[in-house]
Amino acid sequence: MPINRKILLNERPEGMPDKHTFTFTEEETGEPGENQVLIRTIYASVDPYMRGRMENVESYVEPYQLQEVIAGGVVGEVVESKSAAYEKGDIVLGSYGWQTHYIAEESEIRKIDASIAPMSAHLGILGMTGLTAYFGLLKIGKPQAGETVVVSGAAGAVGSTVGQIAKIQGARVVGIAGTDEKCDYLKNELHFDATINYQETDNLEQALKDACPDKVDVYYDNVGGEISDAVLTQLNRKARVVVCGAISAYNLTKPDVGPRVQYILIKKSASMEGFTVGDFSGSFKEGAEQMARWLAAGQLTYRETIREGFDSIPDVFLSLFSGDNIGKLVVKVSEPQEQQ
Amino acid sequence: MPINRKILLNERPEGMPDKHTFTFTEEETGEPGENQVLIRTIYASVDPYMRGRMENVESYVEPYQLQEVIAGGVVGEVVESKSAAYEKGDIVLGSYGWQTHYIAEESEIRKIDASIAPMSAHLGILGMTGLTAYFGLLKIGKPQAGETVVVSGAAGAVGSTVGQIAKIQGARVVGIAGTDEKCDYLKNELHFDATINYQETDNLEQALKDACPDKVDVYYDNVGGEISDAVLTQLNRKARVVVCGAISAYNLTKPDVGPRVQYILIKKSASMEGFTVGDFSGSFKEGAEQMARWLAAGQLTYRETIREGFDSIPDVFLSLFSGDNIGKLVVKVSEPQEQQ
Repeated sequence: MPINRKILLNERPEGMPDKHTFTFTEEETGEPGENQVLIRTIYASVDPYMRGRMENVESYVEPYQLQEVIAGGVVGEVVESKSAAYEKGDIVLGSYGWQTHYIAEESEIRKIDASIAPMSAHLGILGMTGLTAYFGLLKIGKPQAGETVVVSGAAGAVGSTVGQIAKIQGARVVGIAGTDEKCDYLKNELHFDATINYQETDNLEQALKDACPDKVDVYYDNVGGEISDAVLTQLNRKARVVVCGAISAYNLTKPDVGPRVQYILIKKSASMEGFTVGDFSGSFKEGAEQMARWLAAGQLTYRETIREGFDSIPDVFLSLFSGDNIGKLVVKVSEPQEQQ
Repeated sequence: MPINRKILLNERPEGMPDKHTFTFTEEETGEPGENQVLIRTIYASVDPYMRGRMENVESYVEPYQLQEVIAGGVVGEVVESKSAAYEKGDIVLGSYGWQTHYIAEESEIRKIDASIAPMSAHLGILGMTGLTAYFGLLKIGKPQAGETVVVSGAAGAVGSTVGQIAKIQGARVVGIAGTDEKCDYLKNELHFDATINYQETDNLEQALKDACPDKVDVYYDNVGGEISDAVLTQLNRKARVVVCGAISAYNLTKPDVGPRVQYILIKKSASMEGFTVGDFSGSFKEGAEQMARWLAAGQLTYRETIREGFDSIPDVFLSLFSGDNIGKLVVKVSEPQEQQ
């Protein structure tokens, strides 16, 4: 039997997680039982929302428990099957997280079609990341042709997808990101109409005024903090703010304080709505099919950064908060044995 | 011809308005022209939203212009008519504001039915105040039977109506107000399920936890500021925050700063939406008819404070911000000549 290596939550972080947050352990995998399969992990996902689950606060998903595996999206290969539904070599999607192997019930996994896109895309644009962009933008933001959509964290996995879907809807898209490289990517490869490098701007409000002469109808917010404070000053009447992420706040040790939003919302008859992709679980099939169609038609593109090695997972996770990466971050844990 | 006395915006207030904000002037009314009527004001409305119109900022309604009359709701009596639609003695509703007389076009006024309720009620529960409560609660808050609805500024004209409509919907209603007298009124006369006197509480979050054991599904916010900061910590999943007023912020001279809301909205998949009653102008008839039915059936009650005399209008307006009044504030400017 192979050895299963696992990454556990060792202690709850205060502020930025560090090496004490996680601990590695290992155990024998054991044998799959009736209707179970043994999976070897190929790709593990690292996502900003995982930071929230490390805190012991009531939220939309259960907090991680101490000394338990950090759960999250994985793509794996079936290496032994006692299920009629799966056979050795099947590529499956699961949510069992940061471990090299897993014995799954049939209901915990589903086969993925690796002919549409590389299997890692099922952790990104064809997975929860893409659906987060899809539902947040279309069901909450509801952009109309000709409207101005501003996206923060625009070069991230969610933000870069949001901007492209907004373009498909006929909106004018403005991306906010933190490096010139990211802004170049958004303009040149994803055809955003305008970008703002907030690191190079000493007056973000003015930069937004310049980039959004017709003001902001939809703001898809991945970051919170001062960037969002500035965008909120530029809302149009009946603007919709999609509150998807607040990465600026996740690792704060002091209260996250800024201008109160109530007066702006009244003056503009504007709304802010938070969500998590699970709110739309009843429509995942519809969303995934639409995303696959757009991807196949070349209307969507994506970038992913693949880091190597199970041991690197905690560091790759922490790099989400340094603001350097473009697109989706995944960790390659092992090579598939079968042909893709 | 009678003399028309008028109250003009003399200068834009910074912080709390004072005696320099307003100036009185007078002029001859002149003669009504063809299809016009001359109206003598009986009741003038004073409302918190007027503070916002004194600032020269883009908003949902045009700012007041310097040296122009402060516009707002009025009930008046037709004293001379050159319109086939109106005759002497008709009681009409207008929005020509703080002046003793006005020559109106037919389209600027409408007759009111003083048989349903005293004519002043058309500035309150049967007027814009009531519709503000009605649409904000039912179209944005959407309370369901058994849910918990929290109302701030609960003893005010809007808040006291919101709570009663929420009770009609079968919700559990918790009111936040600033005096024991107000809390007694809410519990004993309006049958709120619980009240919190925020002036007598040194831990508003704990008081909310005690008053809302099932947390908060709908928060109808008339005040903003620290009271709303506390309520937002107690939201349920999928909670709706109706942002109607931010009276705590209207007279601030420094930035209105507090805990940012983004992370809460994400964690709870909650929404905040600002509005003004004009957003629902297409449904005013429906709303007004429903309010009149509830009032006639005894399912709604209201309290109004009537102050006397045109000269008192600026002081009565300022008293809105001292937190002392219960229900709707109106100023009686003259006696009706005809029988009500």
